[in-house]
Amino acid sequence: MKKHNYSAGPCILPQEVFEKSAQSILDFNNSGLSILEISHRSKDFVAVMEEARALVLELLGLEGKGYQALFLSGGASLEFLMVPYNLMKVDGKAAYLDTGTWANSAIKEAKHFGETVVVASSKPENYNHIPKEYSIPTDASYFHCTSNNTIFGTQMKSFPTTNVPLVCDMSSDIFSRVLDFSKFDLIYAGAQKNMGPAGTTLVVIKEEILGKTGRTIPNMLDYQQHIAKESMYNTPPVFPIYASLLTLQWLKNLGGIAAIEKINEAKANLLYTEIDRNPLFKGTAAKEDRSNMNATFLLENEAHQEKFDAMWKAAGISGLAGHRSVGGYRASMYNALPIESVQVLVDVMQELEKNI
Amino acid sequence: MKKHNYSAGPCILPQEVFEKSAQSILDFNNSGLSILEISHRSKDFVAVMEEARALVLELLGLEGKGYQALFLSGGASLEFLMVPYNLMKVDGKAAYLDTGTWANSAIKEAKHFGETVVVASSKPENYNHIPKEYSIPTDASYFHCTSNNTIFGTQMKSFPTTNVPLVCDMSSDIFSRVLDFSKFDLIYAGAQKNMGPAGTTLVVIKEEILGKTGRTIPNMLDYQQHIAKESMYNTPPVFPIYASLLTLQWLKNLGGIAAIEKINEAKANLLYTEIDRNPLFKGTAAKEDRSNMNATFLLENEAHQEKFDAMWKAAGISGLAGHRSVGGYRASMYNALPIESVQVLVDVMQELEKNI
Repeated sequence: MKKHNYSAGPCILPQEVFEKSAQSILDFNNSGLSILEISHRSKDFVAVMEEARALVLELLGLEGKGYQALFLSGGASLEFLMVPYNLMKVDGKAAYLDTGTWANSAIKEAKHFGETVVVASSKPENYNHIPKEYSIPTDASYFHCTSNNTIFGTQMKSFPTTNVPLVCDMSSDIFSRVLDFSKFDLIYAGAQKNMGPAGTTLVVIKEEILGKTGRTIPNMLDYQQHIAKESMYNTPPVFPIYASLLTLQWLKNLGGIAAIEKINEAKANLLYTEIDRNPLFKGTAAKEDRSNMNATFLLENEAHQEKFDAMWKAAGISGLAGHRSVGGYRASMYNALPIESVQVLVDVMQELEKNI
Repeated sequence: MKKHNYSAGPCILPQEVFEKSAQSILDFNNSGLSILEISHRSKDFVAVMEEARALVLELLGLEGKGYQALFLSGGASLEFLMVPYNLMKVDGKAAYLDTGTWANSAIKEAKHFGETVVVASSKPENYNHIPKEYSIPTDASYFHCTSNNTIFGTQMKSFPTTNVPLVCDMSSDIFSRVLDFSKFDLIYAGAQKNMGPAGTTLVVIKEEILGKTGRTIPNMLDYQQHIAKESMYNTPPVFPIYASLLTLQWLKNLGGIAAIEKINEAKANLLYTEIDRNPLFKGTAAKEDRSNMNATFLLENEAHQEKFDAMWKAAGISGLAGHRSVGGYRASMYNALPIESVQVLVDVMQELEKNI
């Protein structure tokens, strides 16, 4: 039975990515070798890396604007410390917007490197909205924000104009909507939502912001080293990068970010309309900050939980349970989730209403 | 045509690992979902992680001896700095044995954290042997060595007895030979030789050595955090870990490390015997330190290079070119390389002799 995969990440990827990557494990590029056994220095893999790095900049509209794309490892969690290591001046400070669990983890790691100013936090309201009134210290080394909060179902709809470098963790909504990406000086994202399987991390950096901290940085954590080695400072995670390239190619063929944005808006509208209409449900995030990637909602009456859970499971839906910090349900509608899967969920919600 | 894959890493893995992992990308455990789209918190993947961690300790004979196995990311290169971060006391020192390029990289990263004493180095002889006469400062926080030097074709056949924690980078020969692994306090290894595809790093730690430095450590670089979170501090590289589990299962079914050691010795004997016998070739590493994983050798007369290269390529051999630091040839004979592939190379070497 076809599954409707609402997993919050790692998450659904295009079916053609599964098929092509499985084939490449049996025989990559008709080489007689598996993608899992080739050297990362082989001509075929160097071509994968180069195409993936170039395609990222093309899709984001950042070609020829002084940016470099890197495929690293360690997850966004390693970027939580690489960002301050590479950008926070010795005896300097950095500004952070606290919009959820991951923003909080980034703040904790930054504290190892210097003063960390939290300009605003929605923690007292269990992160149900994005703070909008705050000022960023002009002497901060950078301002850091999280564009989408997977756990709490909120998403930044606009970004502040800053006179300090703008750094953004876009792990859970990169490549999902049109933004002026040139506003950002550093973007990072774990692959495992819209870009590919778990195991690689995209970092997009405006090169001119680097090398200004006065710190000595271990090579492996130094963005300038990774740039100098063309994202091959050490053996990269070959297969996750290859599967990410396949996913980026799928996105390009679909029409790029502008095309997927329309689809994502249609999916989110379909589900949020039902959440607002159906008296059995209520959303948890402030309406103006609702995420188009992760819709979080509760049953008005918890007594219906057993019945609802049985119904969506019977419909082939998986991964709908909410995070323990919020409870209820979380429908993650990443790029590769078809609108048909959203319709199945909406149908189940309406069916529940009829059967109560 | 079947390839004989001598790649130095990433490298050949068992054919059944390719087949099972390709299948898991199309449908994992008959779940209707791909291994690439399931949550790392799903029951099925938690079981993968637990089995992989337990199987590592079982294969190394370290069960119940106070060790923890972790599957991290970032490659051995990230361990170059995690080791001093976690083990080098504030204002302390660490002792290193310099046996090649990777040992040297580890030393460079350690210098960021404190005094780094190089107890011996074979660099003046282009790392063609393993230094044996040296003393380890008794006040060092640990002693670090590299068990096998992929580039230079040398391998430590014995390890010093130390009164400080013994740390070893076993990236290129772990699971290839029987050792008393309980002599070691920390072992790390990039997966991409004998354990799996590129993208994860095994760390095996005697837990009692941790937490003694007086340093504060960013969470993501703190072994104690990773242990507390059962190797799931953040989203792990799901697929590389799954493919590593399949490779470890293959090794266990074969009879474990003792069984593969016999096969590896037979392969190495076959090739080194031919290198020593055939007047056209000479080995580059000191005989007593020769690696059973990577055999490095030269043509006595470089004029034969074109002919030899054409012959081994025609025989389906790939990945035989030596590293630029040594030149000539490097035959990497990791666990999954069948002895039949070594025989094909020996046949080509003998064929060349007849045709000169």
